Amino acid sequence: MTSAPFVPANPDFVRVVQESFSRQALMQTLGVSIAHLAPGEVHLSLPYSPQFAQQNGYLHAGVVASIADSANGYAAFSLAAADTDVLAVEFKINLMAPAKAPTFLACGRVLRPGRTLAVCLADVFAIDDANRVQVATMLSTIIIRPVRAGER
Amino acid sequence: MTSAPFVPANPDFVRVVQESFSRQALMQTLGVSIAHLAPGEVHLSLPYSPQFAQQNGYLHAGVVASIADSANGYAAFSLAAADTDVLAVEFKINLMAPAKAPTFLACGRVLRPGRTLAVCLADVFAIDDANRVQVATMLSTIIIRPVRAGER
Amino acid sequence: MTSAPFVPANPDFVRVVQESFSRQALMQTLGVSIAHLAPGEVHLSLPYSPQFAQQNGYLHAGVVASIADSANGYAAFSLAAADTDVLAVEFKINLMAPAKAPTFLACGRVLRPGRTLAVCLADVFAIDDANRVQVATMLSTIIIRPVRAGER
Amino acid sequence: MTSAPFVPANPDFVRVVQESFSRQALMQTLGVSIAHLAPGEVHLSLPYSPQFAQQNGYLHAGVVASIADSANGYAAFSLAAADTDVLAVEFKINLMAPAKAPTFLACGRVLRPGRTLAVCLADVFAIDDANRVQVATMLSTIIIRPVRAGER
Repeated sequence: MTSAPFVPANPDFVRVVQESFSRQALMQTLGVSIAHLAPGEVHLSLPYSPQFAQQNGYLHAGVVASIADSANGYAAFSLAAADTDVLAVEFKINLMAPAKAPTFLACGRVLRPGRTLAVCLADVFAIDDANRVQVATMLSTIIIRPVRAGER
Repeated sequence: MTSAPFVPANPDFVRVVQESFSRQALMQTLGVSIAHLAPGEVHLSLPYSPQFAQQNGYLHAGVVASIADSANGYAAFSLAAADTDVLAVEFKINLMAPAKAPTFLACGRVLRPGRTLAVCLADVFAIDDANRVQVATMLSTIIIRPVRAGER
Repeated sequence: MTSAPFVPANPDFVRVVQESFSRQALMQTLGVSIAHLAPGEVHLSLPYSPQFAQQNGYLHAGVVASIADSANGYAAFSLAAADTDVLAVEFKINLMAPAKAPTFLACGRVLRPGRTLAVCLADVFAIDDANRVQVATMLSTIIIRPVRAGER
Repeated sequence: MTSAPFVPANPDFVRVVQESFSRQALMQTLGVSIAHLAPGEVHLSLPYSPQFAQQNGYLHAGVVASIADSANGYAAFSLAAADTDVLAVEFKINLMAPAKAPTFLACGRVLRPGRTLAVCLADVFAIDDANRVQVATMLSTIIIRPVRAGER
C-alpha cells in the first residue's frame, strides 16, 4: 500500500506543524523529536527512558500510544487548511510486541484526508541497531476545526 | 449497569496490585495514585501538570490513555490468579471533552473476567471542585499470563 | 452508571427513528425489531437464524456488530435535531462469549451527545428463557449531519 | 508497507480455509466469494444487494464489517496450525466513504502472526468498473484455539 501523493492545503505546513509540535509539552517531556515530515506523513522518534516504563521495564502502553497519537495528529495537521487545529476524536491501538529498545519510531500517515474528519494509521517500531521490530499499530479518527479567536 | 460482585482468585490481590503499581515508573513520573481498589475495579487519580499537556494546554490524549490503560490493567489484575501478570493486548479510547482540570480520575472495571483474556471499561473524569465531567471512555482487551521464571 | 436524562432536540423523535429504521433493509432482512425506544436509548431484538451464522453455528460477529451499530446509531438519532441524519464514523466491538441463543438484544445508549459527533455504547445479550449472557460490547462514534436537499 | 512472506504452519491451508468458509452460512447468504487466498492474505468479494442496505441505500456498516471480519479471520486462519480454529476477539472499523457500488472487495492480511493471538488489517474497497474507492479499514485481534473433540 502506498500513500497517495497528498497536496497540502497550507503551503506553510512544515512551519505550522513544527510550531505546534514545539508547544506539545508532553513531547518535550518525553524527549520526542520529528524524524520525518511530509504531506500526510509524520515520523516521531523517542529515546527509551526507564521513567516512562511499566512494571516489567517495557515502555508503558500509554507512552507508545502518546507518540502514535501525536504522529497521526500531525500527519492529519500537515494536510489541514490554514487557521485550523486538530484534535483526536478517538484511537485504537494494538500492542504487538514488548516495547524494549533504545529507540522507538512512530510512523503516522493519513489514510483518508477530509475537511472535517481524517483517518490515520501509525506503525510504531522498536529500533535496536539494524533491528526494527513493529511493536504497535494505531488507527485514529481526527477532527479538523477552525481555530477560534484568542486561540492560536 | 452494576458490576457483578467479583470474587478475586488471589486473596492477596490488594498487596500484589499495590506492589506492581509501585513498579510502574510512568505512574510515579505522572504522580498517579490509587484512589480505590476492589475486586475487578481500580480508580487512579492524576493531578494536572502542564508538562504532560498537548499544544493547547489540555492533558495529552496519550496521558489520558495512560491512566485509563493502567486502571483497566489493574482492574483485570485484581481478579487474576497468583503468579500471573497482565498485559494490554489492545485498547480503544474516545476523547469526549477537553481534558483541563486540576485532577483526573480514571475508573477501570472488568466487564468480562477470564483466565486468559479479560475485557475492561474505563471512564475518565475531569474533576474541578464539585464538578465532574467525563472526558474519555476506554474499552480494553487484557491478556493474563503466567509469570515466567526470573520475572516477578 | 445511569444514563443522563436526555432531552430530545426533536419532539417527533419516536416517529423519525421508527421511520428511518423501517427503511434499513438489513434490519428487515435479519428480522430485527425495536424493543425499546427512549431519548438516547434504543434496544433492538434479533431472533437467531442459522443463515446468519459463522462456521460453528454461532451468530457471525458481523451480525452482532450490525445490530449493535444500528442500536447505537438510533440512540444517537433519537437526540438529533430535525432534518438531520446519522452515520457511523467508526466502531469497536469486543466479542465476549459465543453468540448462540434463540434471541439477541442489543442495548445502545448515548454516552456523549453532541451536535456534530456523538459517542454511544451498546451491550449485546444472548437471551435464553430467563438466562441473559452478555456476548459483546460496542463503543461507537457517530456523526450527525444536516439532510441535504433531495435526501430524506 | 509490504506483507512479510509468511510460511503457513499447515501445508493444507488452502483446503481448510475453503472448507471453513463454505460453512460460514452468512457468507453464502450475502453471496460472498473468495477472490484471493495466500499465506496471511485473504480477499473476499461481495456483490451489492439492496436487502443488506441501511436507510440511504448504502451497504450497512455491519455488512461492511462482516466481510472485513471474515477476510481478517481467514487471513489469520491461513497461517494457523492444523486442528485449530480462529475466533475474533475484537475489531475496530473506520467507515471512510459511502458504501454504494456494484461490488465490494475486503482485503485482509496478517500484521502480526502468533500462536495464540494474531493482529490483522483489512481494507474494504467499493469497485465500479475501473474505479476503486476505499470505504473502510478494520484492525482486528484474533484468537487461535485448538479444536476441541467433537468440533470440526
